[in-house]
Amino acid sequence: MIEDMISEMLETIRKRHPLVHNITNYVVMNYTANVLLALGASPVMAHAPEEVEEMVGLAGALVINIGTLSTPWVDSMFLAARAAEKHSIPIILDPVGAGATRFRTDTARRLLNEIHVTAVRGNASEILALAGESGSTRGVDSVHGAEDARNVASQLARKHDTVIAVTGVEDFVTDGVRNSTISNGHPLMGRVTGTGCSASAITGAFCAVEPDALIAATGALTTFGLAGEMAARSNPGPGSFQILLLDALDSIDHNIIKERARLSAS
Amino acid sequence: MIEDMISEMLETIRKRHPLVHNITNYVVMNYTANVLLALGASPVMAHAPEEVEEMVGLAGALVINIGTLSTPWVDSMFLAARAAEKHSIPIILDPVGAGATRFRTDTARRLLNEIHVTAVRGNASEILALAGESGSTRGVDSVHGAEDARNVASQLARKHDTVIAVTGVEDFVTDGVRNSTISNGHPLMGRVTGTGCSASAITGAFCAVEPDALIAATGALTTFGLAGEMAARSNPGPGSFQILLLDALDSIDHNIIKERARLSAS
Amino acid sequence: MIEDMISEMLETIRKRHPLVHNITNYVVMNYTANVLLALGASPVMAHAPEEVEEMVGLAGALVINIGTLSTPWVDSMFLAARAAEKHSIPIILDPVGAGATRFRTDTARRLLNEIHVTAVRGNASEILALAGESGSTRGVDSVHGAEDARNVASQLARKHDTVIAVTGVEDFVTDGVRNSTISNGHPLMGRVTGTGCSASAITGAFCAVEPDALIAATGALTTFGLAGEMAARSNPGPGSFQILLLDALDSIDHNIIKERARLSAS
Repeated sequence: MIEDMISEMLETIRKRHPLVHNITNYVVMNYTANVLLALGASPVMAHAPEEVEEMVGLAGALVINIGTLSTPWVDSMFLAARAAEKHSIPIILDPVGAGATRFRTDTARRLLNEIHVTAVRGNASEILALAGESGSTRGVDSVHGAEDARNVASQLARKHDTVIAVTGVEDFVTDGVRNSTISNGHPLMGRVTGTGCSASAITGAFCAVEPDALIAATGALTTFGLAGEMAARSNPGPGSFQILLLDALDSIDHNIIKERARLSAS
Repeated sequence: MIEDMISEMLETIRKRHPLVHNITNYVVMNYTANVLLALGASPVMAHAPEEVEEMVGLAGALVINIGTLSTPWVDSMFLAARAAEKHSIPIILDPVGAGATRFRTDTARRLLNEIHVTAVRGNASEILALAGESGSTRGVDSVHGAEDARNVASQLARKHDTVIAVTGVEDFVTDGVRNSTISNGHPLMGRVTGTGCSASAITGAFCAVEPDALIAATGALTTFGLAGEMAARSNPGPGSFQILLLDALDSIDHNIIKERARLSAS
Repeated sequence: MIEDMISEMLETIRKRHPLVHNITNYVVMNYTANVLLALGASPVMAHAPEEVEEMVGLAGALVINIGTLSTPWVDSMFLAARAAEKHSIPIILDPVGAGATRFRTDTARRLLNEIHVTAVRGNASEILALAGESGSTRGVDSVHGAEDARNVASQLARKHDTVIAVTGVEDFVTDGVRNSTISNGHPLMGRVTGTGCSASAITGAFCAVEPDALIAATGALTTFGLAGEMAARSNPGPGSFQILLLDALDSIDHNIIKERARLSAS
């Protein structure tokens, strides 16, 4: 049962507290760190060229997020990613806003082309932009349905020997051969900044304890979607929801995963 | 009725989700993004010279906030602002800490002199510093009453063909000819970092849907002040208040605006 | 009674609102600012070489935190610290992640060697790394007990004529001659990012009103530990705890300090 595997991965994260090295955007750094702590992982943020290679060597996963990118940070992303490749540390790419500006699209594509990325997590527009489709991203928000991007994601996964997770109303995870679809989640997740980035960071934590990235990403998105549903139960405003989501990541357990996960594999 | 206009602007923001491009300080990026999302707008933060011009072209408003400025960021502020001017996208300036250091005062004045800014939102000390008055700003907190700055604000608005919003116990908005005064708000707003910056970001969202910047800024500050009152109702601590303020921005409606707005125009 | 002194320092902070200038990491900037505001202090964040010297001249304390350091920021830390020395403004150093990477260890040691730091606040691994012990820091989390680091801390305090605060399950503060031990605090403080950084910022606020840094740091850590206990009372999740901790810093009073402080001096 995939639900049992998800519970076991979560248990392992809570026991081992894997260090997740994030090179991410300024907007979500605090929230991402708190998401990882609530989940049971151990976050570190470091971006200086002087230390990223050394830091990633201590980590169980590297999460690269281009949300507020600039040239010096992109250079550090490559430095860290190459060190991660050398140490066989999983690399998760979040192509925030790919499609919105050439700088973001080009940077995300360069990372995907030059680095062996373990998993990519983005919304439909971002994944289409990565694939060179004329998807239009509006700012950092998707204007495509997740469904549109499924075929493109599968092709992209095969081409780059990676796992692509397209998140939206339904989440779709593919390695180009196997797929999973996750229906958990809640619309309030779109009313808080950094939930997409959090999904990527959580994928990093799961990849740190599970070598099969399709399983890891599926577990991460299921866990996060369920936490979103738990946090939304009392119908909170978006501010309260942001906080309750952290509480839910801390309290989610095997029973909740078993009873409420809405997953299908193909 | 101005209250009806405010309700309509808010409705339009919630329907259109205008993209607000923020070049702002590290301290408030997350909170500002959540404020804009709670209001119904769509935030994006981007500062790289490679992308700011392209990003602002997608936006309904540009908000420039000098809270943790540095020379490369100032360069990007000018790049983005010039692109915004070219596309007739409203530009909101938040001169955080003007008067506290020469670097901030000079940068804020340069922006106001060289760019056609649509609206400026600051506290009394910052507005006095912009005008060259020997106002003393202490750190980023105002040591002047809003009242002292009204005449200066009116002159400044006329000189730069802009709208100046001086926020404090009472908020004063002027285009040098017309004025409005808003008495909504709550002292707890001064106990949370980034409420001033949030007021500026909200002004950006209102300017994205309303070309009359005096009306837009008046609507923004009334909405934000009312949300502050709603959040303070249960007499929360400052941490809880910060979260409830986001909830209030999401739940504020026409009835609340109609019944509780305390506004006067002249 | 030390408890009375703590209450008096807190009262003074709430009355004078000392400006605390932070050059700190991106992850915690927002939370640190809110912690200082909740306590009653006035935070400012500024890192540009053009303004740090001027800004620190307005401040009651300078807090230097190397959490997401980079070379330009380190340069600004030295500029600000030298200006603070010239104006006899207390300097607090938080060596986040010292021991994890050479860049962090070297930077923290350089700051301690070249600047007359008033107080250092770190976990056991970080303090051991500062002293040149082969402590292994894992990311930014301590893997040593606070106890192990006490002798090292005392020697380090004497060598650098400073106060060292080693925080952990028990906090230990030493100037190399006098010591205090604080048993307040709660495990949930380790589940929220930036609580260590907050302890350093609060130490800055206390140092701004109390010239005896051993007393100031003891007061800061006692106040923060007590606030942590207050916030944990309802057994909240980590998200809610983060917010309740701000509320507690605002509401903590003389009675709570008197009744619940668990301190010993030697």
